[in-house]
Amino acid sequence: MTRHIHTDPSAWEVLDTIYLHRRPWLTMRQDRVLLSSGQIIEDYYVQEYPPWVNVLAITEDRRAVLIRQYRHGIGKVYYELPAGVHDKPEESVLEAAKRELLEETGYSGGDWKLWMELSANPSLQNNITYTFLAEGVVPSGEQQLDDTEEITIHTVPLDELRNIALENGMIQALHVAPVLKYLMQFPVG
Amino acid sequence: MTRHIHTDPSAWEVLDTIYLHRRPWLTMRQDRVLLSSGQIIEDYYVQEYPPWVNVLAITEDRRAVLIRQYRHGIGKVYYELPAGVHDKPEESVLEAAKRELLEETGYSGGDWKLWMELSANPSLQNNITYTFLAEGVVPSGEQQLDDTEEITIHTVPLDELRNIALENGMIQALHVAPVLKYLMQFPVG
Repeated sequence: MTRHIHTDPSAWEVLDTIYLHRRPWLTMRQDRVLLSSGQIIEDYYVQEYPPWVNVLAITEDRRAVLIRQYRHGIGKVYYELPAGVHDKPEESVLEAAKRELLEETGYSGGDWKLWMELSANPSLQNNITYTFLAEGVVPSGEQQLDDTEEITIHTVPLDELRNIALENGMIQALHVAPVLKYLMQFPVG
Repeated sequence: MTRHIHTDPSAWEVLDTIYLHRRPWLTMRQDRVLLSSGQIIEDYYVQEYPPWVNVLAITEDRRAVLIRQYRHGIGKVYYELPAGVHDKPEESVLEAAKRELLEETGYSGGDWKLWMELSANPSLQNNITYTFLAEGVVPSGEQQLDDTEEITIHTVPLDELRNIALENGMIQALHVAPVLKYLMQFPVG
């Protein structure tokens, strides 16, 4: 029989730490860590990032505001939620999310709330991604994209959103999870 | 009004590529890329990984087999799905998933199917994570952990699984998304 242990796993102790990289888009730390077993891992890599944000924006007529863009890591284009990075100290994460939605899609307004907190990879990254739900957004202006952003905008009804999330139309787990949480409220008849 | 463009974003062209690191747990590529706008990004970083796998395992009495372990990137302990890496060429991803479930929890058997394909971060990583759903798993043996793994096992009923996934008990988006997809079949009464 499988023995079920009931003491929570212990945190690792950092014995030494260096930075391999401290570039604008790559902050890579290497830790020498001691486990509770006594074992030492000489080179544990952690990528340090600021908080990330994304937005599940629903229009007044119950369509989700999605974008499509090319992602070089995976080398393909998928549907995504508007998203960005919280790296301006004068902004809150909510303000960063509102700004990203407006800049990437031209939509704004509606009622906003913190919807979900997730990690892309808790073993390798130190940051949290905050998803905001914005209900009742309206088109307010043109996109204002960074000069490396090429983003198309798509407003989709909720049944299409469900197909996109469940049939590999959307690949990023940080986006699929909050979409599924939202759709759980509307069981398929 | 927001203009909706209907041509899909274009892939980037790789002009040059070097590897910053090629260590066992860190393969970091730096690409010099040309965008369709004509803009060049001199240093785009991509982390290369083999496929990852995880398992949503449900016992015969409808409990989910979860684990808890410390994750150094985020510095905390959370509930997780049993998971691992597909890095043995002689194994399929399904076999890797079955092995990880058995080694991390001692559970095996049941009916298996590919449940979901996701990316932790399509802009920065090149790999896909495959989630398998295993229904009707049974305890078959002891854990067989790697010497740096400290993992506790928890079988939880589905209403507790829902609370864990929706109330920050589980933080990794790659795990929360397939759990929510599974729970969508069982609307809360």
